Amino acid sequence: MFEVAEIGRTVSKEQYDSEVAKLRWELLDAQRRLEAAGLPVIVLFGGVDGAGKSETVHLLNEWMDPRWLVNRAFEEPSQDERERPPFWRYWLALPPRGRIGLFMSAWYSQPLLDRVARELSVDEFDTALDRIATFERTLADDGAVVLKFWMHLDRKAQKKRLTALAKDPLTRWRVTKTQWSRWRRYDRFMAATERLIQRTSFAHAPWFIVDGTDERYRSLVVGTEIHRALYRVLEAGEAEAPKRRRHRPSTGPHAPADADSVVARVDRDRSILDTLDMSRSLSDEAFKTALLKQQGRLNKLQRKAYEQGVSMILLFEGWDAAGKGGAIRRVTSALDPRAYRVVPVAAPTDEERARHYLWRFWRHLSRAGRVTLFDRSWYGRVLVERVDGLATEAEWSRAYAEIEDFERQLTEHRIAVVKCWLHITKEEQEKRFNERAKSPYKSWKLTEDDWRNREKWDAYELAVNEMVARTSTRHAPWHLIPANDKNFTRVEVLRIAGDALARAL
Amino acid sequence: MFEVAEIGRTVSKEQYDSEVAKLRWELLDAQRRLEAAGLPVIVLFGGVDGAGKSETVHLLNEWMDPRWLVNRAFEEPSQDERERPPFWRYWLALPPRGRIGLFMSAWYSQPLLDRVARELSVDEFDTALDRIATFERTLADDGAVVLKFWMHLDRKAQKKRLTALAKDPLTRWRVTKTQWSRWRRYDRFMAATERLIQRTSFAHAPWFIVDGTDERYRSLVVGTEIHRALYRVLEAGEAEAPKRRRHRPSTGPHAPADADSVVARVDRDRSILDTLDMSRSLSDEAFKTALLKQQGRLNKLQRKAYEQGVSMILLFEGWDAAGKGGAIRRVTSALDPRAYRVVPVAAPTDEERARHYLWRFWRHLSRAGRVTLFDRSWYGRVLVERVDGLATEAEWSRAYAEIEDFERQLTEHRIAVVKCWLHITKEEQEKRFNERAKSPYKSWKLTEDDWRNREKWDAYELAVNEMVARTSTRHAPWHLIPANDKNFTRVEVLRIAGDALARAL
Repeated sequence: MFEVAEIGRTVSKEQYDSEVAKLRWELLDAQRRLEAAGLPVIVLFGGVDGAGKSETVHLLNEWMDPRWLVNRAFEEPSQDERERPPFWRYWLALPPRGRIGLFMSAWYSQPLLDRVARELSVDEFDTALDRIATFERTLADDGAVVLKFWMHLDRKAQKKRLTALAKDPLTRWRVTKTQWSRWRRYDRFMAATERLIQRTSFAHAPWFIVDGTDERYRSLVVGTEIHRALYRVLEAGEAEAPKRRRHRPSTGPHAPADADSVVARVDRDRSILDTLDMSRSLSDEAFKTALLKQQGRLNKLQRKAYEQGVSMILLFEGWDAAGKGGAIRRVTSALDPRAYRVVPVAAPTDEERARHYLWRFWRHLSRAGRVTLFDRSWYGRVLVERVDGLATEAEWSRAYAEIEDFERQLTEHRIAVVKCWLHITKEEQEKRFNERAKSPYKSWKLTEDDWRNREKWDAYELAVNEMVARTSTRHAPWHLIPANDKNFTRVEVLRIAGDALARAL
Repeated sequence: MFEVAEIGRTVSKEQYDSEVAKLRWELLDAQRRLEAAGLPVIVLFGGVDGAGKSETVHLLNEWMDPRWLVNRAFEEPSQDERERPPFWRYWLALPPRGRIGLFMSAWYSQPLLDRVARELSVDEFDTALDRIATFERTLADDGAVVLKFWMHLDRKAQKKRLTALAKDPLTRWRVTKTQWSRWRRYDRFMAATERLIQRTSFAHAPWFIVDGTDERYRSLVVGTEIHRALYRVLEAGEAEAPKRRRHRPSTGPHAPADADSVVARVDRDRSILDTLDMSRSLSDEAFKTALLKQQGRLNKLQRKAYEQGVSMILLFEGWDAAGKGGAIRRVTSALDPRAYRVVPVAAPTDEERARHYLWRFWRHLSRAGRVTLFDRSWYGRVLVERVDGLATEAEWSRAYAEIEDFERQLTEHRIAVVKCWLHITKEEQEKRFNERAKSPYKSWKLTEDDWRNREKWDAYELAVNEMVARTSTRHAPWHLIPANDKNFTRVEVLRIAGDALARAL
């Protein structure tokens, strides 16, 4: 989930200055229209210490008209607050219609810290998150725009930032023992955060995960997303009677951003796929040895899994000609034929079309102890169906949560879920297409569609990036595999499958 | 919650026969249109043993076209089922678009029984219910119509029914030790059911609580509600392109029923308010003694509550001239003035109007150890605002859940919540209005509005009935008080307040 916020996106000073001038004007304009439309806006900031929560709030106060802003920060509850139910102080702090409330350390803080300190069990934590979800839905139902930013830093970056803050006499006070002790529990903190974000991300109250490393990038992302969300709501709302809108369009992070904005350009230029080391390869010699070793290991593990009734689902997504079929065959040749099944996912049948899109994957769940390999999968919903417009935005944007719930049910049932994205470069794909065209027994694999899909490369790359951000979880992570070299790919897939099975046993 | 399903509504054989003829035709017509519209329908039956679940499913199979029906019943999971995640069998059982699936003992059974057997903690039970909610939302998002019927019997009626079933050689097999042991845990069963219904009632998947005592009434209610829900969805859907509807209108149980239907007439004729014994009264002599006794008791309890920091909220709703003010004064005169506050609820102020409607009640929450008396309350949303059309159907119908969540937060914070509805008959109200009109120092209390509201008596009665059904809970029950006699009313309110405080301490 957080890997997409660790790919080091930066914005130059020039880009920043020119963009800010435009953005400030847009935000002020949105504020003015907001007042007329009478909509309350709640912008909430969470994140790791030092990732720029308070700096961003400062900046927004500079950029926007403070008359229509309210700043809210929450500390330890006072005596007065403790005598009321916990949400009392949040209710009283709500901005009136037409204003934007900037909330720091609000309703998410306490449950998160309590979970990290193990004062809440997983079930209790879930209950607390569900209460928050109910609260936010109540506000959104009433017309409020709710936006939530998670400011992220990886462990190393956080240490660096805290050290820098502690050195500066002006910011030294911000780094106390508390911050360092939280840093030491970084992994726990992030595990709880992942669950928090997954259980409380909704179209009506979306989370945005922001890479907090580069100050300029992070400020622009927040400003741009706020403007985008307000713009969409205002455009939709002004068509209807003010203060009485019924069906508000999604304010989710999925709107095609203004393609010219700096953030959009930076995001396009650098996606999670660009962080892969595409030079990874294996000589034929090394491949032979490694293949035998990994296949032998997987075979042994799988026989044990069969006995113990532990299942594994291995799914493959990737660019056309990335080598999914070849990788799958190297896995299956290591498995007992009674114990595996390959499910190629193509267009749905009539029976499947007559039901929810997940039905056709549920029906292929195997008995205990089996391996099921999906050649393409339920992620089609947020990849091809999204890019080709086969699913509406409402449909594919709610699919992330549906998929997360589906996979959680699988892993809770002790099924190992392994998700592989085989990544090749655009050049490598072209090379392979041309080879296929020439080869008499491979040319059938190449269709007009394949060439057409290449034109949508950028759109796919954005979709992959968001897919990883929203569905790569601790219990079912994405493995992004550099697949320009087939030898490396095949051994890597076997290794990943073996590791997953070993962990599950 | 269940009291509204225990008021003994019955339907005569003649009424039934004429209605069924019409209803069957309507259901067949809806089925035909459903097939064309391509919507899947899921009708789920839950309830106490013997309340008529299987009889109703039988009947629906008789009434409707079996080609477009699928019946689903679930027993103990098989070996095959246990090897997959628990929802696997429910996913596979989903009806295709255009068909109606009748589900018995489906996804609710296991969590409910596990909770009754205390194999699930409250938090675990909530988690299980939230998973169900996610499942149903996933189906509804995809266009499915989800309707859920809870067939109810009170403890005594259930015993009678089980005994009758056990005597009949044809049905004897249905009553085993299991049924009797569940019956012995009736109270636990209903406590868990209350929570289940509250956490899983949504506009997109509503629960209908059905009085299971009278077979004819119960069959008509189920048939009528199914037809009503389908009719609304079909009417809305046929305007749009088939199979691609986006915004489906609520299928909630709040649609004004066909006013001529037998069920509507029976419901109108007999609401929960008609079950009250309106002859309750107290002589002036008895009143004096009882008043002093109850006031003294309340005073003592309240001083203790003040010390211990236990708060109480006492809210009053009722017909105009039902005596709310007088009852409130008898309570406050028993209390330490530092420790109570009366909040009269009239039209909202500008500041209040600029926020969510619950905000103005949150702001009046007191410090610990205080008593707050609300003269009218947040229930205005589902009473006057509903009846007078000041809130949209979407607004007031989601208010039940919002209120439930609000009150749960209060009671979880150990605030005693006491809700009184003062009920007078229509004749008594007229008498009091006429007295007010004549009295020089009371005539200001009587406005044109009061006379106008009388015309909406039936609409209010329906609203009260639904309010009790949806918001009378174990942690915050409604007290329906026969208030034709002021002496009785005042003592009764004091007694109820004292009891609630005693329980809270």
